[in-house]
Amino acid sequence: MRERILVINPNSNKAVTKAMDEALGPLRAAPDIAIECETLAEGPLGIESQRDVDAVAPLVCRKIEAEAARTAAFVIACYSDPCLGAAREATTKPVFGIAQTGLATASLLGERIGVISILPSAVNRHWAYARALRIDGRIVADIAVNSTVADLQDERKLGARMLDVARELRQRHGADVIVLGCGGMARYRAGLEAELGVCVVDPTQAAVGAAVTAVRLGYRTLPR
Amino acid sequence: MRERILVINPNSNKAVTKAMDEALGPLRAAPDIAIECETLAEGPLGIESQRDVDAVAPLVCRKIEAEAARTAAFVIACYSDPCLGAAREATTKPVFGIAQTGLATASLLGERIGVISILPSAVNRHWAYARALRIDGRIVADIAVNSTVADLQDERKLGARMLDVARELRQRHGADVIVLGCGGMARYRAGLEAELGVCVVDPTQAAVGAAVTAVRLGYRTLPR
Amino acid sequence: MRERILVINPNSNKAVTKAMDEALGPLRAAPDIAIECETLAEGPLGIESQRDVDAVAPLVCRKIEAEAARTAAFVIACYSDPCLGAAREATTKPVFGIAQTGLATASLLGERIGVISILPSAVNRHWAYARALRIDGRIVADIAVNSTVADLQDERKLGARMLDVARELRQRHGADVIVLGCGGMARYRAGLEAELGVCVVDPTQAAVGAAVTAVRLGYRTLPR
Amino acid sequence: MRERILVINPNSNKAVTKAMDEALGPLRAAPDIAIECETLAEGPLGIESQRDVDAVAPLVCRKIEAEAARTAAFVIACYSDPCLGAAREATTKPVFGIAQTGLATASLLGERIGVISILPSAVNRHWAYARALRIDGRIVADIAVNSTVADLQDERKLGARMLDVARELRQRHGADVIVLGCGGMARYRAGLEAELGVCVVDPTQAAVGAAVTAVRLGYRTLPR
Amino acid sequence: MRERILVINPNSNKAVTKAMDEALGPLRAAPDIAIECETLAEGPLGIESQRDVDAVAPLVCRKIEAEAARTAAFVIACYSDPCLGAAREATTKPVFGIAQTGLATASLLGERIGVISILPSAVNRHWAYARALRIDGRIVADIAVNSTVADLQDERKLGARMLDVARELRQRHGADVIVLGCGGMARYRAGLEAELGVCVVDPTQAAVGAAVTAVRLGYRTLPR
Amino acid sequence: MRERILVINPNSNKAVTKAMDEALGPLRAAPDIAIECETLAEGPLGIESQRDVDAVAPLVCRKIEAEAARTAAFVIACYSDPCLGAAREATTKPVFGIAQTGLATASLLGERIGVISILPSAVNRHWAYARALRIDGRIVADIAVNSTVADLQDERKLGARMLDVARELRQRHGADVIVLGCGGMARYRAGLEAELGVCVVDPTQAAVGAAVTAVRLGYRTLPR
Repeated sequence: MRERILVINPNSNKAVTKAMDEALGPLRAAPDIAIECETLAEGPLGIESQRDVDAVAPLVCRKIEAEAARTAAFVIACYSDPCLGAAREATTKPVFGIAQTGLATASLLGERIGVISILPSAVNRHWAYARALRIDGRIVADIAVNSTVADLQDERKLGARMLDVARELRQRHGADVIVLGCGGMARYRAGLEAELGVCVVDPTQAAVGAAVTAVRLGYRTLPR
Repeated sequence: MRERILVINPNSNKAVTKAMDEALGPLRAAPDIAIECETLAEGPLGIESQRDVDAVAPLVCRKIEAEAARTAAFVIACYSDPCLGAAREATTKPVFGIAQTGLATASLLGERIGVISILPSAVNRHWAYARALRIDGRIVADIAVNSTVADLQDERKLGARMLDVARELRQRHGADVIVLGCGGMARYRAGLEAELGVCVVDPTQAAVGAAVTAVRLGYRTLPR
Repeated sequence: MRERILVINPNSNKAVTKAMDEALGPLRAAPDIAIECETLAEGPLGIESQRDVDAVAPLVCRKIEAEAARTAAFVIACYSDPCLGAAREATTKPVFGIAQTGLATASLLGERIGVISILPSAVNRHWAYARALRIDGRIVADIAVNSTVADLQDERKLGARMLDVARELRQRHGADVIVLGCGGMARYRAGLEAELGVCVVDPTQAAVGAAVTAVRLGYRTLPR
Repeated sequence: MRERILVINPNSNKAVTKAMDEALGPLRAAPDIAIECETLAEGPLGIESQRDVDAVAPLVCRKIEAEAARTAAFVIACYSDPCLGAAREATTKPVFGIAQTGLATASLLGERIGVISILPSAVNRHWAYARALRIDGRIVADIAVNSTVADLQDERKLGARMLDVARELRQRHGADVIVLGCGGMARYRAGLEAELGVCVVDPTQAAVGAAVTAVRLGYRTLPR
Repeated sequence: MRERILVINPNSNKAVTKAMDEALGPLRAAPDIAIECETLAEGPLGIESQRDVDAVAPLVCRKIEAEAARTAAFVIACYSDPCLGAAREATTKPVFGIAQTGLATASLLGERIGVISILPSAVNRHWAYARALRIDGRIVADIAVNSTVADLQDERKLGARMLDVARELRQRHGADVIVLGCGGMARYRAGLEAELGVCVVDPTQAAVGAAVTAVRLGYRTLPR
Repeated sequence: MRERILVINPNSNKAVTKAMDEALGPLRAAPDIAIECETLAEGPLGIESQRDVDAVAPLVCRKIEAEAARTAAFVIACYSDPCLGAAREATTKPVFGIAQTGLATASLLGERIGVISILPSAVNRHWAYARALRIDGRIVADIAVNSTVADLQDERKLGARMLDVARELRQRHGADVIVLGCGGMARYRAGLEAELGVCVVDPTQAAVGAAVTAVRLGYRTLPR
């Protein structure tokens, strides 16, 4: 019987979901695990404030509860990990937030993690969350490209700025691994790696990789 | 002109709101500031899980936006500080969460803070939040009485257990100040202080005290 | 019966005491609490070294003991919090140091605290003290204006430099709340707020606000 | 073309390697990645002291260099992560230490990590290493079963003791996820999970899972 | 020409000074450095509160200034390190506090430091100071024997209690090095080491050892 | 009877050993302790990578075991402290690593420690080690001169660069004490102190000073 991993994009931007889905191709090598991506239709076009995070959390929770019986593991594909705590109350199936998992993955690949964020207002949110997770000590800098999630999908518009920020993380802050701090940045991974020679973690890829492992090994978490 | 502080009880338990309101009496000495307590009618009867916290956050946010023009400062009277980040995006009027403010107040009165929580599941939530705020190093223990918010209102039922936990914080963990880790514990402050001789901080009282100061001094915060 | 809060300026500069006293006006709304400021006649003209801090500590202690019976709460109005520990041994009336209270207050108003100090030699002292209080993680920078306490009273001389440092804290270090790191800077609060739009905490105001709350709520601390 | 992950057991105990190999079965679902386990013939029978760790490090390094050209990722299957830093100097292929990866994996599955170690002398080594990695704040306790690596392979001898320690981690220290702190404990995972209902991470499984993801996603690390 | 190290006992108990002086015998091997111990006649009989610490600080400072020209290094022989900061402002000759130096020395001899204190009220003071120094993470426990400094000099009275506390540090808290947390405990070092087989650091000995090294190597500190 | 301190230079560069030996002159004042320096003939010419550190560790361990019976204390004179943990398992004679001891010594002389390293790749290693020791919070910067150990011996080549880095530590990072982060930098101490007026710690000198004290005071450590 096929097991299923559900990746929930909590914003309603289908272009973002599509880019995620494509980036997950390499993780679909074995046919016994299905990796499905869904757009949260009721979500905002981009999750760009704490208010947006708070607004989608109950929606994500409802979705996870509805799907838990027929799903082996979940990935919440927004870099603010909305609903992660509540989801872990609601199900014993492993639930991976892309911020937590992306940072944990990066911590295995480099010593000094740099993060690319969309907006300056996200940066303080990220730091507070990293402290709550006690991962803050591994992060050397978190820099914003100053873009909406929607604009991120236009590589001609944002490509140069993404590269500038990545270069600043690498050269000025000494980052030896970079985390894309938004679920909508998947399309930039290959280009940044090619240009800078530094390892770039797309957190959605990383979280789905962790979910595949979790399903194969049969991890079940304790209800919080 | 009279200034107004709005205290929002995000659960729908009017007995809790009434007890809070009574506990705020001593802070109403000057007639030029009104301290009003409101029950969030759409909230759950008690906020007892991360899911409950997530569920009320958008409701609190809506309330604060609706009241911001005619309110000088807000207090969110739930010890999980739901919506605190989003509220600070929504208004430049000072917004006080009772967990953050209760802990900051306790840090001025003692060296070693003990916290009384309602349920064991709250304890990990509290620790993660305290780390995010970087106040965790001041807390020596956080112990649950194992009660719902509703049952807390019955002193005959919970009084002995509250005293046991406070005594454990004081004697075993050396706490020299105790924070009531729930907006619905206000009625126990006087009894615990009388019995144990230790300073007990009701976080709603503390947050309203901070709000009074903030209004008098004209603090305005930067939008996040 | 009227309760009394005693604010002790441990330096002997009466111009500093007078400026403090004026800044406390907004906290005198209710007639049942008297807020009195006193100059420590035997203190140095400015407290500008650890040696000065050490020298005034026993004098402040003597003063507090002499006044404890007829005083409801104390504020030690020097940003090195001289005598704070000893005072808390000497009385169960709440004693507030302006550094500890100013930082705790700022932590409720912003995410990233900036501090303006008088002399470079104060900066390391401040950091060590902030670590002892475990508040250091909330402070993004502490920058000196390079002035004596006495010169601080001359706005024409120091005004521009105060603004430069505040702007550096805001723009380069991203501070979203600024603490005046000296009891003698009260006169600059309004101007900096007007100029930069950032919340500025005068620590003496903040500590007296906390003392008013403490008196109203009847806090008593355990003898250390 | 098939990619290959090499799992190096740095002790010379073939029974340990065999148990590891069997535990990796579920991760061999897709035929395009080979997971091979090798015993380091020159290693000691068990790695039970810092001296043992130091002794095998150069041997592991030599092995990794010799195999790098035809290997896509490495796993060093000893819970002291011998040679991890040097290996990352020697190759840009991802190298996973089972302690670092086991702890990072556990941090995604629970809030409070408990570790089972073989000998008391390992416990301080583990804490110092966890601090170096900045993961120490996630670990609630690390308790030794007092056994050699060799004896660990005898379930009748050690089974009861393993269960006792796991129960102490769960019940007294509140661990909600347990990490097996030795490459030779793989055989105990299923039994502990069945008995205690808590998630148990075999760090070799976790590290190989991470290696599979790394190979699929094409991670390459910067030479240190 | 002979260089001179001055050890200042800031309490006025000559029995303490005498015991210190005797304990320093082994450090007097080379004739070119004189190690002299002086009692601060104006000090209290024991330094047992923050108030006592504050009271002696200015006296110690005066002493150090008076002696600086003819002294190569100073040791302040009270475990609260009174005046240490001010002394370092007053002279560029190295000044060693016995708490700071005792802890630093212990950190080179063991992994887990236990401290024996005189009174429970000292314990919180010690922790706050250790945090200010950022050495707190190395200390596993700090336990009081409940004695005055004067009574400490009577081995028949305190010997058993000293041993009990040291044993608790060793066995319950796993300390592998013990620091005597009072300048007046020198006489117990040999007995505790003989009884428990654990390394015991008399902080006055340790600080004088550091002072000898500093004089030989010509260290001069920057004025703060 | 004469006691003996053995200083092991784990690289095979005799010029380094000779410079060390000369720098230890001032610590040889008393005739009852012999301080002997030995070059590890089998070591590499410089220890410049984690791989080098790992390679020499077992050799140092063998040396220490062979010499333990006739040696009172050991100093491992490489700033990566190779073998330090294993050496402390192998003998109860005190063993000092120059990095750990140099940093502990610097922490007694200044508030803000700056470190001069040889290569950029050493900097991350140093930080991870400092975290493991929990001394990282005392270090304000660690900057590389970009030289091999061998080239370091040529003052005409490296002198200017050493001074530049020291000046950057002092002026830009505010270091008030500087640690030479390599056993082969001893020759630069005097010049840097003369030029910058800042205290410079040669870690080999500092460690031998600590060893002299340890021998005089009879410290014995617990086997790990």
